[in-house]
Amino acid sequence: MSAIPTTPPSGFRDFLPDSCALRGRVIETITRVYRSYGFSPIDTPSVEDLAVLMGKAGGENEKLIFKIMKRGEKLDLSQGAGELADMGLRFDLTLPLARYYSRHRGVLPTPFKAFHIGPVWRAERAQKGRYREFIQCDADILGSESVHCEIEVISAVMSVFKELTLSAPTVVLNDRRLLFALCDQWHIPEDKRGALFIAMDKLDKAGPEAVLADIGQLLGGNIPEDLRAFAQGGEADLELLRKTAPEAMAGLLQIRDSLRGLSDSYGQFIISPTLVRGLDYYTGPVFEFRLAGFSGSVGGGGRYDGLTEKFGGPRTPACGLSIGFERLMLAIEEAGAKPASGPDACLTVFSEELRPQSLRLAKELRAAGLRIDVYPGMGKLKAQFKYADGVKARYALVLGPDEAAAGEVNAKELATGAEKKVSLADLPALLKSKPA
Amino acid sequence: MSAIPTTPPSGFRDFLPDSCALRGRVIETITRVYRSYGFSPIDTPSVEDLAVLMGKAGGENEKLIFKIMKRGEKLDLSQGAGELADMGLRFDLTLPLARYYSRHRGVLPTPFKAFHIGPVWRAERAQKGRYREFIQCDADILGSESVHCEIEVISAVMSVFKELTLSAPTVVLNDRRLLFALCDQWHIPEDKRGALFIAMDKLDKAGPEAVLADIGQLLGGNIPEDLRAFAQGGEADLELLRKTAPEAMAGLLQIRDSLRGLSDSYGQFIISPTLVRGLDYYTGPVFEFRLAGFSGSVGGGGRYDGLTEKFGGPRTPACGLSIGFERLMLAIEEAGAKPASGPDACLTVFSEELRPQSLRLAKELRAAGLRIDVYPGMGKLKAQFKYADGVKARYALVLGPDEAAAGEVNAKELATGAEKKVSLADLPALLKSKPA
Repeated sequence: MSAIPTTPPSGFRDFLPDSCALRGRVIETITRVYRSYGFSPIDTPSVEDLAVLMGKAGGENEKLIFKIMKRGEKLDLSQGAGELADMGLRFDLTLPLARYYSRHRGVLPTPFKAFHIGPVWRAERAQKGRYREFIQCDADILGSESVHCEIEVISAVMSVFKELTLSAPTVVLNDRRLLFALCDQWHIPEDKRGALFIAMDKLDKAGPEAVLADIGQLLGGNIPEDLRAFAQGGEADLELLRKTAPEAMAGLLQIRDSLRGLSDSYGQFIISPTLVRGLDYYTGPVFEFRLAGFSGSVGGGGRYDGLTEKFGGPRTPACGLSIGFERLMLAIEEAGAKPASGPDACLTVFSEELRPQSLRLAKELRAAGLRIDVYPGMGKLKAQFKYADGVKARYALVLGPDEAAAGEVNAKELATGAEKKVSLADLPALLKSKPA
Repeated sequence: MSAIPTTPPSGFRDFLPDSCALRGRVIETITRVYRSYGFSPIDTPSVEDLAVLMGKAGGENEKLIFKIMKRGEKLDLSQGAGELADMGLRFDLTLPLARYYSRHRGVLPTPFKAFHIGPVWRAERAQKGRYREFIQCDADILGSESVHCEIEVISAVMSVFKELTLSAPTVVLNDRRLLFALCDQWHIPEDKRGALFIAMDKLDKAGPEAVLADIGQLLGGNIPEDLRAFAQGGEADLELLRKTAPEAMAGLLQIRDSLRGLSDSYGQFIISPTLVRGLDYYTGPVFEFRLAGFSGSVGGGGRYDGLTEKFGGPRTPACGLSIGFERLMLAIEEAGAKPASGPDACLTVFSEELRPQSLRLAKELRAAGLRIDVYPGMGKLKAQFKYADGVKARYALVLGPDEAAAGEVNAKELATGAEKKVSLADLPALLKSKPA
């Protein structure tokens, strides 16, 4: 009776305690910062109707969706593969948010500032650093056209990076309307713009040469000079861009200058006319967070004013972003995150007679806010000390007959091996003290 | 372009901000208490191979599983419905834990105390209070046969209830070995025991009459007198039970007496020979938490010493439990949970000229640990005050030209309507003060 796999399916992951504790700590930080900015928590189900997930972009998204098989009588193979499923796992948090807002707008404040942290699933080929189940951390503001929404969501994420003591990111800004105006100026036909954007979106990963080759092929060799210069990293002339798309550029400059003013020199803010951000629902500013030494982004977002319309409601201006949690974790690990801490102490059990006293002491210490492990079961003290090491406890405590009689414990600091007797009254303070 | 649903699929739920905040607070409490007991966090994927999920109990579990359709070439309709899926959503956290432990045991401490909080999915008929996606909060100890594991996991959950200021639960205890010994004593044939346990498991919901009718039918009218008395709620004679299953009863009494000793009169602990707890992988003690006024349980668990064997590893003694999070939330809501708090203050924006000062002030207050919303965009003060009400801010702050010149803000407490000028230096203290 073997043959049952002990590994998760390809692209899915187990998390060992240290990693899980670190991930939990980062999620707590993101939650705290988002809340400090006045964003309200929301949650939606993992599973949505396929009609919600596919929408107009059907073709592209459909490939990403893990579909859930119909059941019982509803499952009718004679209807063909297209009729085997009517629900799927969400592949992002933005579509569910648009559905959620369309349903609940009547009871939500206007504007509505929401954050949503949860897993999404994508049926992509699993590869290093790309998983089929991963966490996104979104913050959005719905119901306001103000460019201050962009400033607010970007500021919140800058505070997240700062709280996580990461090196300051670079925020790259663009506006879809500027991209379209440039396409007009470059006389790029409507039917080639999608492919052009897809090519430009690869600049960061594929580099300018490969991308320019693609674009050259797409445009029959006629690459506009500006586009070539932008792709090669040449600095854009903002004055010229302002003439091309005045409204979009005014917004971008306001976002940039506001963020610079608020930054206290943490982070850089630059306008780049080649930034695309894949999703086709963006309608205005788009932006992306980059960390030095990391290719690709650790998050990004933009304005998507039309998305709620597909649910039949009125047009709702909206702007939001997503932190790429898995890439953020990579950055945190590379920056050398502090190892997760084990319990403050592991309390050994000297004998069955003394167990009640140990359990009582554990209860009191836990009530004082400490993390206390008690050795489960009975074993030699040596095995119990080994266990205390294994769970990375800071102290191993022994409450033997002598200690019990004297109203104290023997406390061994496992990192140093130093031992001392501590009175029960002084014990909480010792366990709460910072390690030397 | 309507017709796209705005409601989630049947049995799945959206959570509005208040509800989401309350759920988050309860999960934080459970996490904190589990950690205070020295349990380590783990996580496993939502999706497992069907071979992991189905196992020997295939038939029963299979009905519960949301299966994920194979994709591309792997999807071959000619192979029949049984070959359309090879993965599914997990329906509990115990099977994934057994897989996880079988895979990672070499790098985990022995015994291993783990907790796992996450969603599970069950394709059951959706009905009031029963959902198709819901959260479980499990704590388990693997690798120890000691009855002190049962005491530890139950104590941890008692602390959870106490921290949540819920009325004290009753913990009902039984042991599968006692149940089997009673069946021997009652001469109930092996092939009828499964059905008998299923009938007994319904006692709490269906009541003694219905259950005794079922049992009478099952046993051809010969209901053992003890069984009839137990089902009718008669107190079990523990001395007699001790003769029936000495080892099991010794364990149960030790669990009960230890918990009583540690309880400080919070909670009741009773031994009931009719408690079954459905899952057939239990091998020793089983237990369940009940709250007055709630039918059914708010959690439970037991010892399952054989479960890791199905993954080909050595037999690992194990014991664990699950808090039924959705039922716990019902109980908390019935007990009258405090409404979720909005931001400490909503900072209005008086004019574009003063916006930078407002944003700067918000940044400083957030850094001081406060939750500060800034009105996104520009609007009349009246609209901004309405927004502050809508997000349930405690204070609405106005920083107009007079206030800016005087280094203060106008602070209106929204619950009382009381207004006063506060210096910027005193503002953090005011916002942190407890409401009167």
